[in-house]
Amino acid sequence: MKTMDLNCDMGESFGAYKLGMDEKVMQYIASANIACGFHAGDPLVMDRTVKMAVEKSVGIGAHPGYPDLLGFGRRSMALTPEEIRQYLVYQMGALKAFCNVHSATLQHVKPHGALYLDAVEDEAIARAVAESIMSLDPDLYFIALAGKKGKTMRQVGEELGLKVVFEAFPDRAYTPEGTLVSRKKPGAVISNPDLVAKRALDMASGFVKAVDGTIIELEVQTLCVHGDNLAAVDLVKTIKKTLEENNIRVKPMGEKIQ
Amino acid sequence: MKTMDLNCDMGESFGAYKLGMDEKVMQYIASANIACGFHAGDPLVMDRTVKMAVEKSVGIGAHPGYPDLLGFGRRSMALTPEEIRQYLVYQMGALKAFCNVHSATLQHVKPHGALYLDAVEDEAIARAVAESIMSLDPDLYFIALAGKKGKTMRQVGEELGLKVVFEAFPDRAYTPEGTLVSRKKPGAVISNPDLVAKRALDMASGFVKAVDGTIIELEVQTLCVHGDNLAAVDLVKTIKKTLEENNIRVKPMGEKIQ
Amino acid sequence: MKTMDLNCDMGESFGAYKLGMDEKVMQYIASANIACGFHAGDPLVMDRTVKMAVEKSVGIGAHPGYPDLLGFGRRSMALTPEEIRQYLVYQMGALKAFCNVHSATLQHVKPHGALYLDAVEDEAIARAVAESIMSLDPDLYFIALAGKKGKTMRQVGEELGLKVVFEAFPDRAYTPEGTLVSRKKPGAVISNPDLVAKRALDMASGFVKAVDGTIIELEVQTLCVHGDNLAAVDLVKTIKKTLEENNIRVKPMGEKIQ
Amino acid sequence: MKTMDLNCDMGESFGAYKLGMDEKVMQYIASANIACGFHAGDPLVMDRTVKMAVEKSVGIGAHPGYPDLLGFGRRSMALTPEEIRQYLVYQMGALKAFCNVHSATLQHVKPHGALYLDAVEDEAIARAVAESIMSLDPDLYFIALAGKKGKTMRQVGEELGLKVVFEAFPDRAYTPEGTLVSRKKPGAVISNPDLVAKRALDMASGFVKAVDGTIIELEVQTLCVHGDNLAAVDLVKTIKKTLEENNIRVKPMGEKIQ
Repeated sequence: MKTMDLNCDMGESFGAYKLGMDEKVMQYIASANIACGFHAGDPLVMDRTVKMAVEKSVGIGAHPGYPDLLGFGRRSMALTPEEIRQYLVYQMGALKAFCNVHSATLQHVKPHGALYLDAVEDEAIARAVAESIMSLDPDLYFIALAGKKGKTMRQVGEELGLKVVFEAFPDRAYTPEGTLVSRKKPGAVISNPDLVAKRALDMASGFVKAVDGTIIELEVQTLCVHGDNLAAVDLVKTIKKTLEENNIRVKPMGEKIQ
Repeated sequence: MKTMDLNCDMGESFGAYKLGMDEKVMQYIASANIACGFHAGDPLVMDRTVKMAVEKSVGIGAHPGYPDLLGFGRRSMALTPEEIRQYLVYQMGALKAFCNVHSATLQHVKPHGALYLDAVEDEAIARAVAESIMSLDPDLYFIALAGKKGKTMRQVGEELGLKVVFEAFPDRAYTPEGTLVSRKKPGAVISNPDLVAKRALDMASGFVKAVDGTIIELEVQTLCVHGDNLAAVDLVKTIKKTLEENNIRVKPMGEKIQ
Repeated sequence: MKTMDLNCDMGESFGAYKLGMDEKVMQYIASANIACGFHAGDPLVMDRTVKMAVEKSVGIGAHPGYPDLLGFGRRSMALTPEEIRQYLVYQMGALKAFCNVHSATLQHVKPHGALYLDAVEDEAIARAVAESIMSLDPDLYFIALAGKKGKTMRQVGEELGLKVVFEAFPDRAYTPEGTLVSRKKPGAVISNPDLVAKRALDMASGFVKAVDGTIIELEVQTLCVHGDNLAAVDLVKTIKKTLEENNIRVKPMGEKIQ
Repeated sequence: MKTMDLNCDMGESFGAYKLGMDEKVMQYIASANIACGFHAGDPLVMDRTVKMAVEKSVGIGAHPGYPDLLGFGRRSMALTPEEIRQYLVYQMGALKAFCNVHSATLQHVKPHGALYLDAVEDEAIARAVAESIMSLDPDLYFIALAGKKGKTMRQVGEELGLKVVFEAFPDRAYTPEGTLVSRKKPGAVISNPDLVAKRALDMASGFVKAVDGTIIELEVQTLCVHGDNLAAVDLVKTIKKTLEENNIRVKPMGEKIQ
């Protein structure tokens, strides 16, 4: 039986500020990337989100970001590899503590926002991210971008001995080169749930259809969908249903099948 | 052979801001209370401080505080017990991660500044602190104020099953009631190293001489000295030397004697 | 012709976090209390909110709070009067700059959340708030709680020569002593728009009916309604309409009538 | 009589953290660039520093930076021009308020650290900085880098109608192209006070000697020296003394000579 992970960013609320639809989304996903307090999230939100993930048997991942709450971690910051390493150890450790408290295991790590994009582009940053994960716990899964653009993250992660997991975006259009179409271009984001679910199915079969119709091979172990609006809840739900109807088991990347 | 722990606040620098004389003090103390980034400290400082503690075989403790960098955690904040619990899980977890990275064990927890003082005065706060420690790791030592005033912290900690360790301040004058003389009063702080060392010796023997000469029984397992100026380095050094000359072994609270 | 001010907290969004319904509420109120970045708000939000207030001819006020974004300024902090004074000068100055940029005048100051409540209870805090306003600009209006409980704020403000403006809460129940019924008690908050508008009318006439039916005299120059949900928009709208239908002009406290 | 301004970064302490030797340096400089709370400084420090500047008749400037206290504003952040504009209005406004309180006038603005360097390299950033200054107060002086590299800042500032003031660094080596020798290269920083003072004198005469002996023309109205260590105090003192002995009056850029 084929399997596929389905991940979503969670725990992005902060203090009085509520963001996302975590309660609604959690039941449909397999793995949650939980913000760690630097770009979003706070200790109460982290505790609540970890608890909810445990209740729904969702795999728990750290979603560390740049120390920029004001910019939601979406703005690149010129950090040294040393700074990135220690900022990530700190954030992953904080989330791991909430896992401990709820008798759960930290499953994976996925860098957030600008840190993710910078890791895709810059080997030194990808390496700093991977090293920090390795230094904390070599059993952690490391989510990297699937396809050509994710090559650096993949190589660096594998070189260090990390378990690298490739992710793709079923609601995003792909270029014939296998990269994401820029959000600035029309048609970059696909919103029809059935179409997105169909693409999720393709990805589970190892390919994606590019904007020009080209079929691109893509090794994918986890699908990422954003869950911050009502439509997204429907998207996640439809993807899960469609995959399961096609005998693909939606499960956390770290869950062993007996 | 008698033993005594000697603890000091460490890792209170932040970014470009340097505070304390950690490099000089670390060699004389037995346990370090390391700031966790809320009232002081940052990931780079935490990593460096944990590394230094490991090199000097110093017991590592989390020193969590209120989320108030601007006030250095010295200002009371009206937090709910739930907020205190989760803020502490977060901070302890972050420090624990640096312990993991350096193959060290987190030994103890000591609340910082206003949080410590509030825990002394308010049972609900003491309980929130103790519960957070227990929820993360029941093997952690919990530093509480020695003497009458520390009774609440002690009871709450022991009730939960924590290993409570009592601390006293050899460079502070004590009232006949066994409480610290307010810093606002003359003579509250004792600066003569030999006198402080003599008091440390008394404390290791189970008593302290109050301002009026009364001998007060005091069960003490760890002595706290502040290490943020050159004189303090001398103080720590003299206390350690004096204790050892009197056959009292200065060692981390968590270190087993074979 | 009688007049009444109608104020609402505005500009409480922060970065990616949206809070409140400023766009909808702004058209119905007379004065806006704009967050200044310590407990809520950020420079982009402040600029946008000031611009919007100018467009709707709404009086602009600074709404300074404790430096506690995580707690939204709702948690008391043990600050010194000196700290309160300088934190307020900073925040008022920042908002004033956005007024300058939009050729507007800063009209008033109203402390936020726990700072407001602390100023009501503690004369030293009320004084620190009033002194900071006076030191920046003696022409600023100072919003104080109407009724007995607001006596300290009123006295301190008037003693310093500030123009004190009394505010009441038409959607809150009052005790026979003229204080607000605690939010923890049933019936503390009144949600029926017509009833609230009726009470606003009473307040404009100088009295409020307490929970037991007692008529309490209350000198009121501005009414405060919270505008963070859809129902609140309706509330503000109904109050304004009702006042105007009763020949009470709803206008900013600082606006001169020709 | 020739004149020269001498500026220094001031007010970089934060809460319990002390940085710089403001008390010692203030007496020798003509203008102070005061941190505004984003990368350094806090309301108490700002108040104290403005007060001190007023007492010593030192011209007061805002020294806004990136919102990165952890990195002391030394790390580039990918902000939009709009973000830069509003962050600067906020910071300048906050400092201006302390000027108001102390009956002083805000004289100039100089971006800090990475923001300064980014403004030198990137016209859009230089423009955002200049526009924010212009929008707050067209009478503010805008400090720009002297020489070729500062051309963008200069053009943008002048185009908007700002009073641009060129600054040079007497303790830094210059390339034959008129740019600063990278700090990573040996000899980049000159520490001999007499030599630095001699170079200050050259700069006041309109030139600087490059590392290869070339004489480069350089229009300079203000000299910048860092004042964060004891040697720097001596440097500032020697520069001031030398300039005055050579009949160059050291005065704030904004001070009119009668």
